[in-house]
Amino acid sequence: MGLAVAASGACAAPPRDRKIGYAVVGLGRYAELIMSKFAECEHSRLVALVSGTPEKLEKFGTQYNIHKTHRYSYANFDTIRDNPDIDVVYVILPNSMHAEYVVRAAKAGKHVMCEKPMAVSVAECETMIAACRAAKRKLMIGYRSRFQPHNMLAIQLAQSGFVGPTRIITSEHGFDAKPNQWRLDRPLSGGGSLMDIGIYSLNAARYLAGENPVEVSAIESTDRSDPRFRTVEDRISFLLRFPSGIEATCVSSYSSNHNAYRVIGTKGWIELEPATSYEGQKMRINRDGRTEPRDPPAGKAQHAAQLDHLAECIFDDKQPLVAGEEGLADMRVIEAIYRSAREGQRVRLV
Amino acid sequence: MGLAVAASGACAAPPRDRKIGYAVVGLGRYAELIMSKFAECEHSRLVALVSGTPEKLEKFGTQYNIHKTHRYSYANFDTIRDNPDIDVVYVILPNSMHAEYVVRAAKAGKHVMCEKPMAVSVAECETMIAACRAAKRKLMIGYRSRFQPHNMLAIQLAQSGFVGPTRIITSEHGFDAKPNQWRLDRPLSGGGSLMDIGIYSLNAARYLAGENPVEVSAIESTDRSDPRFRTVEDRISFLLRFPSGIEATCVSSYSSNHNAYRVIGTKGWIELEPATSYEGQKMRINRDGRTEPRDPPAGKAQHAAQLDHLAECIFDDKQPLVAGEEGLADMRVIEAIYRSAREGQRVRLV
Repeated sequence: MGLAVAASGACAAPPRDRKIGYAVVGLGRYAELIMSKFAECEHSRLVALVSGTPEKLEKFGTQYNIHKTHRYSYANFDTIRDNPDIDVVYVILPNSMHAEYVVRAAKAGKHVMCEKPMAVSVAECETMIAACRAAKRKLMIGYRSRFQPHNMLAIQLAQSGFVGPTRIITSEHGFDAKPNQWRLDRPLSGGGSLMDIGIYSLNAARYLAGENPVEVSAIESTDRSDPRFRTVEDRISFLLRFPSGIEATCVSSYSSNHNAYRVIGTKGWIELEPATSYEGQKMRINRDGRTEPRDPPAGKAQHAAQLDHLAECIFDDKQPLVAGEEGLADMRVIEAIYRSAREGQRVRLV
Repeated sequence: MGLAVAASGACAAPPRDRKIGYAVVGLGRYAELIMSKFAECEHSRLVALVSGTPEKLEKFGTQYNIHKTHRYSYANFDTIRDNPDIDVVYVILPNSMHAEYVVRAAKAGKHVMCEKPMAVSVAECETMIAACRAAKRKLMIGYRSRFQPHNMLAIQLAQSGFVGPTRIITSEHGFDAKPNQWRLDRPLSGGGSLMDIGIYSLNAARYLAGENPVEVSAIESTDRSDPRFRTVEDRISFLLRFPSGIEATCVSSYSSNHNAYRVIGTKGWIELEPATSYEGQKMRINRDGRTEPRDPPAGKAQHAAQLDHLAECIFDDKQPLVAGEEGLADMRVIEAIYRSAREGQRVRLV
């Protein structure tokens, strides 16, 4: 990475001897977790907070020693442009607010980390990518599993043919959604389990296959009399076919717990369960008829690795591993899944 | 079972103090296994053989002590009507020959056990059921897993809500097909992996849900340049939606090994892997966050239990647990899966 040459037209990279400063936007539960992870980072530090709730700004500002001048509301958010301590804005808002805050952050001259799903439509994703490109700022999506050691090993083994060429991928993600959350409110979430947790099934299928699917078919099952599911879907299962012929069967559920995937090749399989949790991943490998647990080499924990990855991309002026284009690729498939479920048709993607 | 009353119009049931006599038709590899299982039966015995290969009749006739008068060719098959030792004809022929031999067996006045898939079309299944009904003979399909103790316990636990109401079923079956077999020749097999091994994914989803699906969606992936797959499909994944809202994701493959299912309820899951093998089933149950192995109560081995079940149904004049209607129900879904994959449409079943 130290050998990277600065791309022409890029702004001067900050010196590597300081840490990249993050502003976290939206102080909900996941933001709480993220804020706690800067302590593990080599290249990243928390320098600013953005929230509509003064009590949260006060509480977390005190906890993380954030100066009062570095605590912002949504009203004065755009003045972050005048704060040179902020290099990156990390958007951890409800899904339908991602696009607006990513674009505003880019216009304020900041790099952006945006939680997944990147947005609630392909059109929004394209706008966000264009805004960051115009501002010559990095855009990275919070696909933390790509920095998680078991997942990194699974990708490497799958794509190196360790269990033979991949034939089938099964990927299941779900949880029993508690009522009265923004994620169950379509205007904020843009959709139900697929936007929130099924995206892990999809994203894993894509990173394990190393390809984008060309065919999508989906069936939805939602009990509209359940107060949780008045505006968003519960279960939506989907099939993907990839150019190499790999087929993936994927589960997305808001009424049952799932967190697993398996890559099945001609000679065996690679399994993670749990696969994409915050911690506790377990891998099993089946080869030549024997099943054994396997541990990856020790590595940086996924959240710190994700935060530091963007910092290193800024230092070296490199494209993040999971740039906006990765979020857009998922969103294209998500739109196809919804369309297939709605119209009862297989959808082709090109 | 001893309390069952003979149904009106049925032929007189044989006395219970003798064993029901089976003729096995088709002496291939699976028939070899079946013949070896009569030694474990309480109510069933092997009394006759039918084959087009004199060497096989000689070999197995000698091995199982079958008198020369009880060894038949396909040419004189219909003379089994004159052999009172034969109560049941067990059809273990290539799929496209099932219908003919079931109908001929019924016309010869014999009860019938028929291997799965029951036939190669819904129309054939209906003809077979009608022929057995007209002859007042039992028709049972060789769904041995319904007599396998782990599967029986899984069905009981799933349907009693042991892990909460079922939300999702995942079911995967496949193997790496060797070339040059009748199963790869469509005129004999009627189809590829789905007819042969994917039917286990389908049948398990149905018996675990305890319902018939109302929606089917499928995607096929077949490399037609692979000599094995000139006339039949390799992989065909399918989704099922059941009336209660259960969704099933199912794998069928001729190029990778799979033998597992999982029933996921609101409180945990029930898993079998291997699930439908000849032996070695293993069950794990996850409930309240803990995963533990579980063994069913000891029971009769599946093949002997399957053979004896039909014998008991004959003694007691009862409908088999897996009668022709069960084979027909699978075949309706199989036709829908093929249609969905071919036409790119979700198919509704009523």
